[in-house]
Amino acid sequence: MTDDPRASTRSRENTRARLLDAAAEVFAEVGLGEASVERICERAGFTRGAFYSNFASKDEMFLQLAKVVAGDRVAAVRARVAEIDAGAQLHLDLANAAAIVRVLDVIDDDRVSTLLMHEISIRAMRDRDLGTAYAAQEQELLGEVVQIIDEIADAKGLVLRVPSVDAARIILAVWADVSARAAIAGLDAEAIAEQRSVEVGRVVQLVIEKG
Amino acid sequence: MTDDPRASTRSRENTRARLLDAAAEVFAEVGLGEASVERICERAGFTRGAFYSNFASKDEMFLQLAKVVAGDRVAAVRARVAEIDAGAQLHLDLANAAAIVRVLDVIDDDRVSTLLMHEISIRAMRDRDLGTAYAAQEQELLGEVVQIIDEIADAKGLVLRVPSVDAARIILAVWADVSARAAIAGLDAEAIAEQRSVEVGRVVQLVIEKG
Repeated sequence: MTDDPRASTRSRENTRARLLDAAAEVFAEVGLGEASVERICERAGFTRGAFYSNFASKDEMFLQLAKVVAGDRVAAVRARVAEIDAGAQLHLDLANAAAIVRVLDVIDDDRVSTLLMHEISIRAMRDRDLGTAYAAQEQELLGEVVQIIDEIADAKGLVLRVPSVDAARIILAVWADVSARAAIAGLDAEAIAEQRSVEVGRVVQLVIEKG
Repeated sequence: MTDDPRASTRSRENTRARLLDAAAEVFAEVGLGEASVERICERAGFTRGAFYSNFASKDEMFLQLAKVVAGDRVAAVRARVAEIDAGAQLHLDLANAAAIVRVLDVIDDDRVSTLLMHEISIRAMRDRDLGTAYAAQEQELLGEVVQIIDEIADAKGLVLRVPSVDAARIILAVWADVSARAAIAGLDAEAIAEQRSVEVGRVVQLVIEKG
């Protein structure tokens, strides 16, 4: 034990974060139904006591995890927006489509997170409270992507063939679809990113008005 | 017992079909992990003996179910293609986008089948054999949609802005995305179909070259 309450808080947050990381891996590997508290603790290297001092139940932990994963996606997009804001000139030499694809690639979506997002979607369809929270998070992500598209379109003087909110929705749908197909095909992270760039790039070009 | 072997075969197929229907409902409601053989049998009104005379295990049943569901989607699209082939003139008075949306709506995709397809996707990401079978089925569905798009485009003299295979992939991705969001929002089957028509219609118009 330490007398410094900040050290205790840091230690607690570290335990919590490691349990959430382990849970993300175990949920993605075996699914929510078969991911036991024991298995998550074993993966994280903690006791059941540590688990239950952080989470009331496996379900409560899952809700937290859904928030963390969606929050991570939004944070990644937001950071990329800030970069573009700070150094828009850097992008002027890129092809129009490539610029938007590169932004979307910051949402790290390898096989594990694709599986996890599918698990979360299913839970959101079954549980009204989780569904409401998840829909709000997805709406926030959509808003961030709309902002990115608007900023790039403004900076480059591009004209879109549909409102940017519809463009964002179509781009995110294609991005999720190609990620799922790539994960099913057993592609590695690099091949998934490449496949996603091709297909998302194609749809980005589709939403841009020909000059 | 009957002496007529055809009656016995019909009875067996009926039992099998009722078990698969019950399994689809139970899987979609509680997920694959928590759907027990007992629960499926109770829903179907059969004994465990009836289950195990038709399927070696819950997993084998799931693989069969994945085939049936994907096969149903392909069959629905195929039937619609045949209709178009037989009476192409019927569609001449429809708006271009509406014609393609109407075709896609024959894939009956209410909340239960959306949940089920998500479960199947997750299993396909985890199980290489199921993944291969599932990818082949999805490829077949894609081929059917490509054929539909080509036939409608030919009949109406439409020019597409991307190859029809890319158009089909984007349309199916948006269709899956809007189905999932509508299911999470708790919309009923009619509202889901309406929302899908709006969003799929928008992407169909996007892939059609302006005249």
